[in-house]
Amino acid sequence: MVRFIKKISKKAGLPPGTLVHIGEKKAEKVRIRLIDYDEEHFEERELSSIEECCGYKEKPSVTWINIDGIHELDVAETLGRHYDLHPLVLEDILNTDQRPKVEDYERYLFLTLKMITYEEKEKIVHVEQVSVILGSSFVISLQESEGDVFDSVRERLRKGKGRIRKSGPDYLAYALMDAVVDNYFLVLEKIGEDIEELEEEVIRKPGPETVESIQNLKRELLYLRKSVWPLREAILSLEKGESPLIEDKTAIYLRDVYDHSIQIIDTVETFRDMVAGMLDIYLSGVSNKMNEIMKVLTIIATLFIPLTFIVGVYGMNFKYMPELEWHDAYFFVWAVMIAIAVLMLFYFRKKKWL
Amino acid sequence: MVRFIKKISKKAGLPPGTLVHIGEKKAEKVRIRLIDYDEEHFEERELSSIEECCGYKEKPSVTWINIDGIHELDVAETLGRHYDLHPLVLEDILNTDQRPKVEDYERYLFLTLKMITYEEKEKIVHVEQVSVILGSSFVISLQESEGDVFDSVRERLRKGKGRIRKSGPDYLAYALMDAVVDNYFLVLEKIGEDIEELEEEVIRKPGPETVESIQNLKRELLYLRKSVWPLREAILSLEKGESPLIEDKTAIYLRDVYDHSIQIIDTVETFRDMVAGMLDIYLSGVSNKMNEIMKVLTIIATLFIPLTFIVGVYGMNFKYMPELEWHDAYFFVWAVMIAIAVLMLFYFRKKKWL
Amino acid sequence: MVRFIKKISKKAGLPPGTLVHIGEKKAEKVRIRLIDYDEEHFEERELSSIEECCGYKEKPSVTWINIDGIHELDVAETLGRHYDLHPLVLEDILNTDQRPKVEDYERYLFLTLKMITYEEKEKIVHVEQVSVILGSSFVISLQESEGDVFDSVRERLRKGKGRIRKSGPDYLAYALMDAVVDNYFLVLEKIGEDIEELEEEVIRKPGPETVESIQNLKRELLYLRKSVWPLREAILSLEKGESPLIEDKTAIYLRDVYDHSIQIIDTVETFRDMVAGMLDIYLSGVSNKMNEIMKVLTIIATLFIPLTFIVGVYGMNFKYMPELEWHDAYFFVWAVMIAIAVLMLFYFRKKKWL
Amino acid sequence: MVRFIKKISKKAGLPPGTLVHIGEKKAEKVRIRLIDYDEEHFEERELSSIEECCGYKEKPSVTWINIDGIHELDVAETLGRHYDLHPLVLEDILNTDQRPKVEDYERYLFLTLKMITYEEKEKIVHVEQVSVILGSSFVISLQESEGDVFDSVRERLRKGKGRIRKSGPDYLAYALMDAVVDNYFLVLEKIGEDIEELEEEVIRKPGPETVESIQNLKRELLYLRKSVWPLREAILSLEKGESPLIEDKTAIYLRDVYDHSIQIIDTVETFRDMVAGMLDIYLSGVSNKMNEIMKVLTIIATLFIPLTFIVGVYGMNFKYMPELEWHDAYFFVWAVMIAIAVLMLFYFRKKKWL
Amino acid sequence: MVRFIKKISKKAGLPPGTLVHIGEKKAEKVRIRLIDYDEEHFEERELSSIEECCGYKEKPSVTWINIDGIHELDVAETLGRHYDLHPLVLEDILNTDQRPKVEDYERYLFLTLKMITYEEKEKIVHVEQVSVILGSSFVISLQESEGDVFDSVRERLRKGKGRIRKSGPDYLAYALMDAVVDNYFLVLEKIGEDIEELEEEVIRKPGPETVESIQNLKRELLYLRKSVWPLREAILSLEKGESPLIEDKTAIYLRDVYDHSIQIIDTVETFRDMVAGMLDIYLSGVSNKMNEIMKVLTIIATLFIPLTFIVGVYGMNFKYMPELEWHDAYFFVWAVMIAIAVLMLFYFRKKKWL
Repeated sequence: MVRFIKKISKKAGLPPGTLVHIGEKKAEKVRIRLIDYDEEHFEERELSSIEECCGYKEKPSVTWINIDGIHELDVAETLGRHYDLHPLVLEDILNTDQRPKVEDYERYLFLTLKMITYEEKEKIVHVEQVSVILGSSFVISLQESEGDVFDSVRERLRKGKGRIRKSGPDYLAYALMDAVVDNYFLVLEKIGEDIEELEEEVIRKPGPETVESIQNLKRELLYLRKSVWPLREAILSLEKGESPLIEDKTAIYLRDVYDHSIQIIDTVETFRDMVAGMLDIYLSGVSNKMNEIMKVLTIIATLFIPLTFIVGVYGMNFKYMPELEWHDAYFFVWAVMIAIAVLMLFYFRKKKWL
Repeated sequence: MVRFIKKISKKAGLPPGTLVHIGEKKAEKVRIRLIDYDEEHFEERELSSIEECCGYKEKPSVTWINIDGIHELDVAETLGRHYDLHPLVLEDILNTDQRPKVEDYERYLFLTLKMITYEEKEKIVHVEQVSVILGSSFVISLQESEGDVFDSVRERLRKGKGRIRKSGPDYLAYALMDAVVDNYFLVLEKIGEDIEELEEEVIRKPGPETVESIQNLKRELLYLRKSVWPLREAILSLEKGESPLIEDKTAIYLRDVYDHSIQIIDTVETFRDMVAGMLDIYLSGVSNKMNEIMKVLTIIATLFIPLTFIVGVYGMNFKYMPELEWHDAYFFVWAVMIAIAVLMLFYFRKKKWL
Repeated sequence: MVRFIKKISKKAGLPPGTLVHIGEKKAEKVRIRLIDYDEEHFEERELSSIEECCGYKEKPSVTWINIDGIHELDVAETLGRHYDLHPLVLEDILNTDQRPKVEDYERYLFLTLKMITYEEKEKIVHVEQVSVILGSSFVISLQESEGDVFDSVRERLRKGKGRIRKSGPDYLAYALMDAVVDNYFLVLEKIGEDIEELEEEVIRKPGPETVESIQNLKRELLYLRKSVWPLREAILSLEKGESPLIEDKTAIYLRDVYDHSIQIIDTVETFRDMVAGMLDIYLSGVSNKMNEIMKVLTIIATLFIPLTFIVGVYGMNFKYMPELEWHDAYFFVWAVMIAIAVLMLFYFRKKKWL
Repeated sequence: MVRFIKKISKKAGLPPGTLVHIGEKKAEKVRIRLIDYDEEHFEERELSSIEECCGYKEKPSVTWINIDGIHELDVAETLGRHYDLHPLVLEDILNTDQRPKVEDYERYLFLTLKMITYEEKEKIVHVEQVSVILGSSFVISLQESEGDVFDSVRERLRKGKGRIRKSGPDYLAYALMDAVVDNYFLVLEKIGEDIEELEEEVIRKPGPETVESIQNLKRELLYLRKSVWPLREAILSLEKGESPLIEDKTAIYLRDVYDHSIQIIDTVETFRDMVAGMLDIYLSGVSNKMNEIMKVLTIIATLFIPLTFIVGVYGMNFKYMPELEWHDAYFFVWAVMIAIAVLMLFYFRKKKWL
Repeated sequence: MVRFIKKISKKAGLPPGTLVHIGEKKAEKVRIRLIDYDEEHFEERELSSIEECCGYKEKPSVTWINIDGIHELDVAETLGRHYDLHPLVLEDILNTDQRPKVEDYERYLFLTLKMITYEEKEKIVHVEQVSVILGSSFVISLQESEGDVFDSVRERLRKGKGRIRKSGPDYLAYALMDAVVDNYFLVLEKIGEDIEELEEEVIRKPGPETVESIQNLKRELLYLRKSVWPLREAILSLEKGESPLIEDKTAIYLRDVYDHSIQIIDTVETFRDMVAGMLDIYLSGVSNKMNEIMKVLTIIATLFIPLTFIVGVYGMNFKYMPELEWHDAYFFVWAVMIAIAVLMLFYFRKKKWL
């Protein structure tokens, strides 16, 4: 649970804009990849340092700089200096506990997104922060670890498929957001399957560990929801925003991502409702089992306790007990006892206990 | 449950506007029907390919193209080319997991609706996506399978009944929406009857399977709600929208559909409240049954345990036990035991257990 | 429960504006009453057909046409023709499953209200639809059955009491709304008394039928709420609306009705909260009873089971059992048993079970 | 509970503006007090009738008329005539079931407030309606009974303390509102103490009457909330309102009262959350007690039932039972039984039942 | 709990603006510290009285007056006189039960914040009120006790680190707010750890005291939430506000604090959801334990009760009981009893009770 609130305490008391990396160090080494393209040409390079991308800054073509691993503070600092970024932007990039948001710094837009993955074995949702800076001729994307969610975008750029090569950096930024958001559906599909399994389990063979699973799923959905709601707001503010960096024809695509984000929220909320209902089934199942146990006890006890009393009576040692002398008393007592048992059983049947 | 989130993963990573059919293939063959009408004339044809409808495009009369079965990608593509539709519109038509929405592409309006049917035997709500494209002189409607919900509209067109033949394509689009929305009432009626039955069952003869039924109904209502809330928003945005494609005199009819959509939401929410209350009755019923079982056990046990103790006492084999020698001790013991039993019964009656 | 959604299916598939009566036929015969008045004169007539009111249409005096029983379609049709009403208005009048609403058709305002009555014996809320059409010199009111809620308005008109005769048709429409809304208070008073009784019952003598009563009340409040919330909105839209048919000095009275509608909502919500709390008391009462039953069983069982064991020991038939030979063993065993019982009772008292 | 909805039925069917007193008659006699002041002079009088205050109407000094007891209709009527009040204002003054509100009648503002007191013994919140009419040079305040909440205001006026004598009637109205609102804190303090006590009780010695106390507190908070939420709105509308009767420098004080009203709402909501949580503790306490009872029963029963079986075995009267003949069989059986008991106790200890 | 509503009653009835200290006296002595700085020079002094800071008032450099301990009324009064503060501001400073808020008095802005600390041993959240007055060339901050949360700000001022020395008083005020808000994260981290521990406890070894811990945590979160929600609003109103005292370049920093406040709210709400879920696990755990106890009882009882009946039968003393005479009857009865026991055990295994 501690992951709900990362060690932001590292930063408390420092002046704003102080660069401190908050979060786990997920990538081993910082990796910088540059793609520069326009409709005609395409160039892809791996950079060893941020400084190498200076030359591309003035070119009219779209430059996409992708940085995997953001824990090295000097990369951020160099980046900030080169692209003249506000210190708060750099701080937000390094603090991986941001909510998804869009901020308009006039010369550029700053986006924070959450990329999620679902570890199926442990049934844990992992969240990775992706920051995107959209300028007039460049897009800088920063990830915590080397991910592959952007590979399809790279592929489309390389092949010149679709409209991506014909469009500006705003379309590229949209493509990145779309890739991140589409990934949510994959995670939701897997969670959906887990919910289905759990539902089966709750009805078929509920046990104490079922409660734990339900609780676990509940927590993951809570966690997911926490990153999904602000995402919607962020995309909306981008779509409605009046930044000249977003062209009108791209806005229509943003509306599409916005629709997807609403669909994701819908699904998360539906899942939450379903999981909430499961505990009720579980508890009613426990109650039913209890009832069944009690029935067995009650049937056996009420059947035999009166009979045991009767045999107890004729086990008494009184001198004068006329029945004891009668010849067929023993068999008569058996008859009486069988009759009582049969009556009892009829009573239970009437009560629908049998 | 997996139906809550369709295999959208098929599409993840592809560029936006790539046409992939998401959903089950519900219709065998694509069927294209064309109706062209104005106040005086009426023409109805079955087309074998989209291309055939080109001639109608320039005519001032209203052309309604109805396509059943949207899984064939080239139909969508041809349609898109002919009517110059935005690639995202085509994508949304094929992706049957859209939320109901209205999008204004200036030259045309794009509507997505959800048509629901209720399978009474399995008590499952089926949702089918209906897309409507409203242009200045045409309406294109696309369904997943061959439905009959639009038959009444066709009939009215054929007979020239009502104002439909005198009105433009916006009124036709309204008529289609109205047909879809009216259908919700039919489904709600059937669900209402199921809730009534279940309510009877919960009170009269609750069993473990009742919980399952309640849970099932809850889920279906959740599902229904998911498609009904955005419907309201969509219709509202259409009514309030300032598209010149919607005439003023049609707007008043849209307000009527809007009222219906609110009524549907109201009913769904009321049903949800009712179903939520049922689990409470069920649980209180289970508690009451438990109480009854416990009472039977307690009465029998507390009645006979003391008596069994007494007969046990006189079953002891001590040499010197004066009572054993007394002549009427046996009958006296019986009297005592009957007295105790009677007192016990009085006590239980006072406690209102009998 | 089916009353939550009336047989609207009768209408599905018909063109909008088709007149179909939806709802039960509550009145035997259609009854048309006309009152025509201004400050000086007053005329009251019973009409045999709608046509008779034509003459009053052009007069500057206020004409109030009250129609009880709306199931006869030709009455609605004639009315529509005479007063040139929109087909959707007529449809809404006949469809008694409308939500309360106000619609502005420029030449006239159309209001739908819900008049409620509470059947005290069956504890069921009955809802009747009242439609009001407010024109520049006339008010038409339509009810499902012959009601008497408007009698006080008639009386005031006859006697010329208050400002009603001095005011225009908007004040008359207000007076009708006020009469309908005031009636809600009467129903709420009765429901309030039922809640009070039920609260008494839950605490004093809860039984399985209590749950049913709670559930029933819950449902009625749900039902009531469904017609009360849109009422508020409708009145607000009327007050805030800019229809020239409502004079400024009448708006102040509408604000008063609006205040009442909020008060009604407040009360309904408070009642709902109270009834929701009752199930909790009921369940805690059931738990307490269970605890009590268990205590009795446990006391009796733990008291006698050890004693029964002891007497069982001396009922054994071993050849060599020294105690059996001792002279006062029997009395000694009694002493031991009494001591055990006393100790047990002390233990129970310490546990506060006695 | 009936107090949630007063006998408004008295009024149903009467024309609006008809003066009917709704509520209990709380004061014996109507008492009218007049204070007339400006910065220099101060006059305080007790009036025997409303007519006596006519002379003060034209004076530029601020006139405060305080009326305790509003059940006498002619007082209201005379007041209405003298100050030319709208009939709906008079109706609202007499109907003590109003929600707190502010209404702007241009020449004067009409305020309804709720003054609450908490009867500590019965733990019941009493609500009294206070109406305030603020004109350009006068303030009229009307209460149901003789209260003392305004005594501090009177005192400040007499002593000329603070800015009250230097300010206009709007500041006086503010002072009255402030006195009413401050009083809420006193009531909340007492309720807070009751909640604290109850929390102690729920944990230390819960009993069936605890549920009643919780439920009672819940209801009182519901009741309190009902009068506190509209208060906030009323004060806000006064602060934001553009009535020329409120001077700018007074608005800042109204903001202060507004802050207080929000604080009151916060506290009421917090209290409601706390009380809601208590029932959960209570129920978990009941469950724990049940568990304990069951444990005692189970330990005793499972300990002795097997032993009773064993002694039963050797109480059988078979001719040929070899063990009965053995010399030390009796002691051996004891040894076995003690061993079984000890094993059982170990088992219970392992299960943490002992 | 009484801390939810402090003894505001002390103040009830006094004129507004009367200075009364509400809250505990947390600091021993009032301590006044003054820092005066601009980009070039820096001066830090400890003042013995407010009067000493007069000289700094006219200087263009930024003057920060920090006052620890606000219980001495004359300090507040002198401050009010010197800086010409509105009486309501002074009242709000002394009343430590304010909600966080921002008020614009044109010449200066008045901010109230809540500084929280978490006492880990008692698991109690302590809240201290911090008031900040931001003028055109000065910032006055007032705390209840000597805190150290502002030490980092002082350090940055002394060292001239960051932009603080180059910026105006608005940036200083921002720095103070940032320090307060950052502190919330520290508290949330600790609470997060407590929740984690508690979650472990609920699943591993739940006991009655667990409920108390859950309830306690719930209350603290309720308390925290009460001070965190208005904080967000306050910061937002400051950011959106149009006070000329806040420069544009500072507004961007306020947006950052605003983001933090939303993050805090998110976390508090997530924690609340988690704690709410815990009681459910606890209750299901209790139910499971009950089930287990009942199972043990039922197994033992149903196993031995029939056997005890059988041995009771052959303990009867009838003259004529043929079985008693048979030679191997005793062993045969043993065989029957063992068979019954084995069958029972098979039955229990089938039921999954063993």
